[in-house]
Amino acid sequence: MIDSDKKVIALCGGVGGAKLALGLSRVLSPGQLTIVVNTGDDFDHFGLPICPDLDTVMYTLGGVSNKTQGWGREGESWHAFETLKELGAETWFQLGDKDLAVHLQRRALLDRGFSLSAATSSLCSHFGIAHTVIPMSDNRVSTIIETAEGDLPFQHYFVREQCRPTITGYRFDGIESAAPSPGFTRALEDKDLAAIIICPSNPFVSVSPVIELPGVRDSIRASGVPVIAVSPIVGGKAIKGPAAKMFAELNLPVSNQGVADFYGDLLHTLVVDQGDRDEPLNTGCQVHYCNTVMKTLDEKVALARECLHQSLLFTPGGSAKGNSH
Amino acid sequence: MIDSDKKVIALCGGVGGAKLALGLSRVLSPGQLTIVVNTGDDFDHFGLPICPDLDTVMYTLGGVSNKTQGWGREGESWHAFETLKELGAETWFQLGDKDLAVHLQRRALLDRGFSLSAATSSLCSHFGIAHTVIPMSDNRVSTIIETAEGDLPFQHYFVREQCRPTITGYRFDGIESAAPSPGFTRALEDKDLAAIIICPSNPFVSVSPVIELPGVRDSIRASGVPVIAVSPIVGGKAIKGPAAKMFAELNLPVSNQGVADFYGDLLHTLVVDQGDRDEPLNTGCQVHYCNTVMKTLDEKVALARECLHQSLLFTPGGSAKGNSH
Repeated sequence: MIDSDKKVIALCGGVGGAKLALGLSRVLSPGQLTIVVNTGDDFDHFGLPICPDLDTVMYTLGGVSNKTQGWGREGESWHAFETLKELGAETWFQLGDKDLAVHLQRRALLDRGFSLSAATSSLCSHFGIAHTVIPMSDNRVSTIIETAEGDLPFQHYFVREQCRPTITGYRFDGIESAAPSPGFTRALEDKDLAAIIICPSNPFVSVSPVIELPGVRDSIRASGVPVIAVSPIVGGKAIKGPAAKMFAELNLPVSNQGVADFYGDLLHTLVVDQGDRDEPLNTGCQVHYCNTVMKTLDEKVALARECLHQSLLFTPGGSAKGNSH
Repeated sequence: MIDSDKKVIALCGGVGGAKLALGLSRVLSPGQLTIVVNTGDDFDHFGLPICPDLDTVMYTLGGVSNKTQGWGREGESWHAFETLKELGAETWFQLGDKDLAVHLQRRALLDRGFSLSAATSSLCSHFGIAHTVIPMSDNRVSTIIETAEGDLPFQHYFVREQCRPTITGYRFDGIESAAPSPGFTRALEDKDLAAIIICPSNPFVSVSPVIELPGVRDSIRASGVPVIAVSPIVGGKAIKGPAAKMFAELNLPVSNQGVADFYGDLLHTLVVDQGDRDEPLNTGCQVHYCNTVMKTLDEKVALARECLHQSLLFTPGGSAKGNSH
């Protein structure tokens, strides 16, 4: 396994990313792992700062996530939300009572001058999370889904419209003037950084905002560490979310090939589900096959170990290419 | 009773005011009554617009108020609030889950461009309130309590500090540039206006902000209608809240005399609890004695009728002075 003084960055979106992040947190010590979370889905609702991916990661690592519904907290009640319905409020974005409290406290912390990083750190500490969970940026970046029906902020597309409209493109409003969060920059520049793991999140809207932040792609390259991505496409489908639909509507192959092409020469290794071993793949990076479907904690930990193991196979300065297994 | 084409304004703060407002709403038709509510206690908390007096009036008239605790809603749950405690949030201002929903919807309405008047109207309609309940102003006015320990926004003094600090003065920040709400102005200028009733609320911090809004005192005088105030002091004490403590600390008599002096020549009639009949009173206005302690709905309705009846005794252009009963 990876040396105890070596460090790892995980780039991560929501549910799928959070699963691997949880696995990594069981394998790496708190000082070794920085989980950098997409905030392109963030928006304000009822005056509250909604950070869907940050909360999914926080609730998952804090052991309070609702695994059935894939968002929010387990053992949740809905009294505020039911009352909002009675009041004729917008209720397409559901917030449970406990979940609401997290949003209220984030609002209070931000109003008190906390950065989103500092607010996240404060909240995570209350959930007993020792590993570093940070937003990709403390500046607001807004993922906009361009559809045949017009532009939609990501959560409007994803939750309100249930991913129904056909995608014609996407963009990240505000990204040019956003900076990577200080913790993200520090982690990228850390001399002990040994690997960057791209979790099996939506490449377009979960990972891309993180990578496209000014300077990040260059910093990743400059770090010289292996970049290992876990493909979110298994058997031509996404485990969760609209990734497969987006690949298709953007006229890209709905396959591991599509994922490899999307990340291009940023990747050293693409980790592909073992069930897709027969899919023809033409990549400029290594491909590693293993189980990538993480239903149990053991599967999450196993995939984390596979990713870390792949990073050790990378030869600095070398050109290790081709498929393993 | 008052003619059905005649109109009445009630100026009102929190609990005591809301009780009389409820009584008036059982006696007057929706078109006859405009309840103008103090908003000097309003502040932002967790990013939400907190309007304590507006909500007390709304919950009271909507039949959902918690009569035991004197604020908030009955049948309330506290899941968000309990979670806020766990998160180490500021929890001196309690918000139940259903109460929270009202605040979230008010935030959403204001963010959508609604004035506070329009947001209040929308919320009230959902509580089935047909009578007009409006904020004194759509602009933020902040009652500041000046104490030996420094300035405190009203709710910090009232709730967080439990009225403990000794008062040296008070002021209404922002009042010079605030305007009476359009509905308040319309009601004051209505040619059918027949009476202005000052509910038994705290004269300093519940009624004074309403009266001291630019132009209001002049408009009240110009209307020529009788102004009937119900004294909030009974037996040398306030039924609820810090009124008595404030009178004492401001070196004013803690008595109906103190109330009469405070309102001065604005008043045509001071309604005093019958138990205080023996208190010597030297006023420039009429004094009417009756039961002013409103424990039951019947008592609220009875006091409303007494106030309206007193307004009928006023002789326009005349100088009806002296004590009745």
